[in-house]
Amino acid sequence: MNLETIQFKNNRLIIIDQTLLPFQEKFLNLQTLEEVIEAIKSLKVRGAPAIGIVAAYGLVVHAINLKKQNLLTFQSLKIAANQLKQARPTAVNLSWAVERLLNAIKDLNTPEKVITRLKKEAIDIHQEDKSTCDKIGTFGSSLIKPEANILTHCNTGFLATGGIGTALGVVYKAFQQNKKVHVFVDETRPVGQGARLTYWELKRVQIPATLITDNMAGFLMQQGKIDIVITGADRIAANGDTANKIGTYSLAVMARFHKIPFYIAAPLSTFDLSLPNGNQIPIEERSSQEVLQCWHLEKEKYYHVYNPAFDITPAHLISGIITELGIINKPFNKNIRKLLNQLN
Amino acid sequence: MNLETIQFKNNRLIIIDQTLLPFQEKFLNLQTLEEVIEAIKSLKVRGAPAIGIVAAYGLVVHAINLKKQNLLTFQSLKIAANQLKQARPTAVNLSWAVERLLNAIKDLNTPEKVITRLKKEAIDIHQEDKSTCDKIGTFGSSLIKPEANILTHCNTGFLATGGIGTALGVVYKAFQQNKKVHVFVDETRPVGQGARLTYWELKRVQIPATLITDNMAGFLMQQGKIDIVITGADRIAANGDTANKIGTYSLAVMARFHKIPFYIAAPLSTFDLSLPNGNQIPIEERSSQEVLQCWHLEKEKYYHVYNPAFDITPAHLISGIITELGIINKPFNKNIRKLLNQLN
Repeated sequence: MNLETIQFKNNRLIIIDQTLLPFQEKFLNLQTLEEVIEAIKSLKVRGAPAIGIVAAYGLVVHAINLKKQNLLTFQSLKIAANQLKQARPTAVNLSWAVERLLNAIKDLNTPEKVITRLKKEAIDIHQEDKSTCDKIGTFGSSLIKPEANILTHCNTGFLATGGIGTALGVVYKAFQQNKKVHVFVDETRPVGQGARLTYWELKRVQIPATLITDNMAGFLMQQGKIDIVITGADRIAANGDTANKIGTYSLAVMARFHKIPFYIAAPLSTFDLSLPNGNQIPIEERSSQEVLQCWHLEKEKYYHVYNPAFDITPAHLISGIITELGIINKPFNKNIRKLLNQLN
Repeated sequence: MNLETIQFKNNRLIIIDQTLLPFQEKFLNLQTLEEVIEAIKSLKVRGAPAIGIVAAYGLVVHAINLKKQNLLTFQSLKIAANQLKQARPTAVNLSWAVERLLNAIKDLNTPEKVITRLKKEAIDIHQEDKSTCDKIGTFGSSLIKPEANILTHCNTGFLATGGIGTALGVVYKAFQQNKKVHVFVDETRPVGQGARLTYWELKRVQIPATLITDNMAGFLMQQGKIDIVITGADRIAANGDTANKIGTYSLAVMARFHKIPFYIAAPLSTFDLSLPNGNQIPIEERSSQEVLQCWHLEKEKYYHVYNPAFDITPAHLISGIITELGIINKPFNKNIRKLLNQLN
């Protein structure tokens, strides 16, 4: 069902350029650390799990380059890891992935061993994410009624992950189970991940979909046209507060007002138990150009724009969190900790 | 403070082309009924009071054209009035204005008298709207605190009316009273009346403003950055239910959730007492192209888009309705009727 949008073959990291979708399916070979960081910053690859995987492969590519120049040391990798982490501050999967690679090579003492191990770890992260997506999809599909109208925001499918996706993975699994689902796709201003990416994915797998502007979601809810809202997450605090694409919070408020279930679908790598709640999650502010270009206003210097890329949805507005180990229900604080303890 | 965006001079109807703003301040001379209808349909002129005024002048222009061809009859004007009314279905000011013109000439029996009277009536509507805007602005400004952060949606200023505006008129009056207001401007997808028109107006009069995408409003409210929300209206039912630009309903829900006052500012010509509530207000659906063009997706035939131009905000979410006779508070049913009776 999914397209291999991230590939690692013969030490080459290849990704689809998401900024060109849905017009062109162009693949890029990222050959240096700088190219990987640029690809993450410019949203050529985006989606919390996907940037974790690409950052991991990126560190491998960088290690291979360093080895060729006899410059491969733990310290040089640590510096690179920090640069990768700073590419985007909100999604925690990014730092989770590079930290995992660094931890794996701590005690290794030859460049060959380091590279072999980094490669194995990056491939493991990628493969685990595939399987994680399948499990999230299967658990989540139990929430989907046979003819459900599902509202989603941003992109959380095979472009955003190493597998079939998180929130969109739930849709795919329900569809595979012959449920006649229909998806309302929020266009997701300002970057259009819904309009450009989610709609393209749904069309590829022939799931009926309707594109709307973000400000129409409330009106659809009022008319009783939405059965469930599912989105992904970029970081989830210990109490369940969730950072996700700007606009998610408004959907959660409106879902609550209309008594519509609102679910988050995310791998456990998205949880950040070091943060007791969402107040500490850093919110990336991006360029005003992202907002202005829709209106061809990029050159109008007098425009003052506020462009936070994410918002925080408080736990009390979330019906449940769909993970690879099952659906976490309230009380989140207790149940998140319980589930994550199963991992250790 | 305002620009004369609608002018009627020497029997010529001249409007600013709003589709070209903020890049070009180009004025158009509308010479036929067809040109007037096209200008309304294509949003060259928009805003409920403004389309009422332009429709009224449009009927005058058409009557003059008919007279030149010896075709001026009450019946021919009635047909034209119906065509004008159908140009856009939601705003009631449009049919209110052309009905007022038709009523004024019912008993007149020469083409000269008809034209003189139509002209007087259209000019009266325009002048009354100027004065109405001033009064709305003055009443509404009592709600604005000295350093208020005001959130607004769509465009409701001098482009949308014959005067300083409705919701934006309130902002202008508060600013004239030396209140240090700041406006958060919803870009207002899909057509961008906020990004293109409201921001341009505010810049012209040097009121500090910040442009946001519609889906950021909730996040700002959560952060305590919004003191009051004010929007205009396209039609208000007898119970206070209000049709306005798509996205207004979501703002009202979120304002309620965050306990932020939510006001409508509109002239009494916007009220339609023939409708007991908002369920009967027709909602215009517009072309999918309006949604797709931001993403350059106009040619992608597989996109299915839902594009309602308006939504209905139920009366219970509205704190008050600012009119030229004062601010209507709850219970709306009783107080709307009481105020409108003062007119008769």
